[in-house]
Amino acid sequence: MTYINDNYLKLTGGYLFAEIARRVKKFCDENPSQKVIRLGIGDVTEPLCPAVVQAMHRAVDEMAVRTSFRGYGPEQGYDFLREAIARNDYQCRGANIDADEIFISDGSKCDCANILDIFGADNVVAVLDPVYPVYVDTNVMAGHTGPADAAGRYSGLIYLPATAENDFVPDLPTQRADLIYLCYPNNPTGGVATKEMLKRWVHYARENGSIILYDAAYEAYITDPSIPHSIYEIDGARDVAIEFRSFSKTAGFTGVRCAFTVIPKGLKGKTRAGREAAIHPMWNRRHSTKFNGVSYPVQRGAEAIYSPEGKRQVRETIEFYLTNARLLREALAKLGIQAYGGMNAPYVWLKAPGGLSSWEFFDKLLKEAQLVGTPGSGFGTCGEGYFRLSAFNSRANVEEAVHRFSRIM
Amino acid sequence: MTYINDNYLKLTGGYLFAEIARRVKKFCDENPSQKVIRLGIGDVTEPLCPAVVQAMHRAVDEMAVRTSFRGYGPEQGYDFLREAIARNDYQCRGANIDADEIFISDGSKCDCANILDIFGADNVVAVLDPVYPVYVDTNVMAGHTGPADAAGRYSGLIYLPATAENDFVPDLPTQRADLIYLCYPNNPTGGVATKEMLKRWVHYARENGSIILYDAAYEAYITDPSIPHSIYEIDGARDVAIEFRSFSKTAGFTGVRCAFTVIPKGLKGKTRAGREAAIHPMWNRRHSTKFNGVSYPVQRGAEAIYSPEGKRQVRETIEFYLTNARLLREALAKLGIQAYGGMNAPYVWLKAPGGLSSWEFFDKLLKEAQLVGTPGSGFGTCGEGYFRLSAFNSRANVEEAVHRFSRIM
Repeated sequence: MTYINDNYLKLTGGYLFAEIARRVKKFCDENPSQKVIRLGIGDVTEPLCPAVVQAMHRAVDEMAVRTSFRGYGPEQGYDFLREAIARNDYQCRGANIDADEIFISDGSKCDCANILDIFGADNVVAVLDPVYPVYVDTNVMAGHTGPADAAGRYSGLIYLPATAENDFVPDLPTQRADLIYLCYPNNPTGGVATKEMLKRWVHYARENGSIILYDAAYEAYITDPSIPHSIYEIDGARDVAIEFRSFSKTAGFTGVRCAFTVIPKGLKGKTRAGREAAIHPMWNRRHSTKFNGVSYPVQRGAEAIYSPEGKRQVRETIEFYLTNARLLREALAKLGIQAYGGMNAPYVWLKAPGGLSSWEFFDKLLKEAQLVGTPGSGFGTCGEGYFRLSAFNSRANVEEAVHRFSRIM
Repeated sequence: MTYINDNYLKLTGGYLFAEIARRVKKFCDENPSQKVIRLGIGDVTEPLCPAVVQAMHRAVDEMAVRTSFRGYGPEQGYDFLREAIARNDYQCRGANIDADEIFISDGSKCDCANILDIFGADNVVAVLDPVYPVYVDTNVMAGHTGPADAAGRYSGLIYLPATAENDFVPDLPTQRADLIYLCYPNNPTGGVATKEMLKRWVHYARENGSIILYDAAYEAYITDPSIPHSIYEIDGARDVAIEFRSFSKTAGFTGVRCAFTVIPKGLKGKTRAGREAAIHPMWNRRHSTKFNGVSYPVQRGAEAIYSPEGKRQVRETIEFYLTNARLLREALAKLGIQAYGGMNAPYVWLKAPGGLSSWEFFDKLLKEAQLVGTPGSGFGTCGEGYFRLSAFNSRANVEEAVHRFSRIM
């Protein structure tokens, strides 16, 4: 009989959002007249902007005519999109990234997960805690960990606590880490990385020969001009970092699917024999062997985000969500609930009041206010006692949520 | 320094099509006035059909309005598409496949490659020779092989020859194989699997506890009613087979990106400890952790293929390509060149005349007739001396190619 990959058996429980869905469904079945407001899963609610819609229509029309039809595109993405990204997201911020260092993909989750394919099994991996579960689960699947302990932490991974006690700025690892996942603006805490923090990480990586896997999926929410949008704004980062970006939260592409990964040409790892090996050609090989490029109309839609109208329209929606975040933050402050994030990020991270656990607060909010959020413990041990609210919602729902918070607190 | 995945170092050369592109470019640079006709890479040339175009436009419009906007969809695909597939591709052919056994993806290449994630490292893997290179390369990347020998065969893989000598019907493996890749209608030979052949494979898999990875990306080209479109038309296949399908060649989706994989619920593997483990929940976990679903407008486009107009329009295009294949086949026969396939498949597989090697024939065709095909040796040792022509082209190009063949032979 065919062997399965036993590492999958180490995965604890289901995915966080499945358990949330289960509890919400149970509540709704038992209380069919109550109107539940979901501030849980980080999915956008506002439609695609007109520039994107028009570009996608035009591309679909091109596909309808033999002379303009496009079949297989380059697996790495069309130049028109790679060049727009290099110019607008990097070069104009002083980050020296070329178009051919950008790999277009259908999602940042996919890229963060698939990147492990090109790395060896013997690397020491570090993650923040709380953490986006995909980083951990994909390392478990790849056999980079032992089993989970009672608290859900897997042996073999380095967990770097980010809590109120250290102002959500994790210490550098005391042992050597080869691969380090960083996510800024952070999911779930909404924290950001200052230039100083990133300099420390880049310095650490250069000293230790580590590679930083930098997830900047929420960079569009940065409004403070002193906060870097890309790790490549830090000198020396080109030699030690891979960056993941997505159009999901930037332009409402969660259902459209487009993202990209940056692999600078100079980035190197080593073979088991100790020989240096360039990472860019390895990812290029992986990407062209196991992937077939992103849908052409989708790439045209993504390109339109960089047009003058596209930029303006996308900015409006981001400001709309950021206003939602501010309303939530201010309401919590007024109620004396300690809250973080939500300033350069679409997530507000709060301390469950009265010493409640994350799931206790989840149940209380659901039962008493029909509000759904995400229990912080779902993101790791250090998330216990915390709770994530998402700003992705209509204004009416956010205002109603604020009202209900005030009522029950 | 971070370890790379050393298995990548075992990969021989670049991808076949890169070498073809290099030689064609060199020829064109040196002979700028010559018009080259490409019958090489298997990419479609005809536009999307109107039913698909209309459905995609409607879906893009839905995404432009808040009330009909869709964010994250189910990772496994929308029910409207999974149900259309189950009904039209399986149930109406007597194959008992349910909608929730179908996983929508952005490409069959991705699925064929990613499927290895859920299997163990100790499986014995068998492939046909000639073979679609992705099956082999992804096993190399996953560390399932040793290095390649001088002929390009990797140690640790079982190669099953399919040549004119055995009528392109490979013998069953003499040793036990855990994972067996089959592709019918075959890329590159254009051969098909009869019901009897598939019965033998299903019997073998049931006897040996193997799993068949059945790639049916070209099933839409089957016109002979006695040839099965799906392996699930064979009794007992549900317990031993995974099937890959794609809209790329069925409906011209190479640039649109949509495919699917079928994993029957009863399919089982075993853990290292010898315990049975169901495959469906493992792939579901893989798919939802490392993938985020297919673009919504693309799924609506795929759904439209199953509408009455969609079926008719798609059929017309397939018949157009099949006529191209017939023209090529007949011309070769007239010239006394031994050719195979091209009857229920879009590929014609020919024996290079005069004892030429695959690449010698490639160079001859390019230089003397400005025709580009695919050297059979690029698909494996047993492809040496053979050559693949693709029927994906305009009628004018195919007619001109036929004319040029006659001129030089």
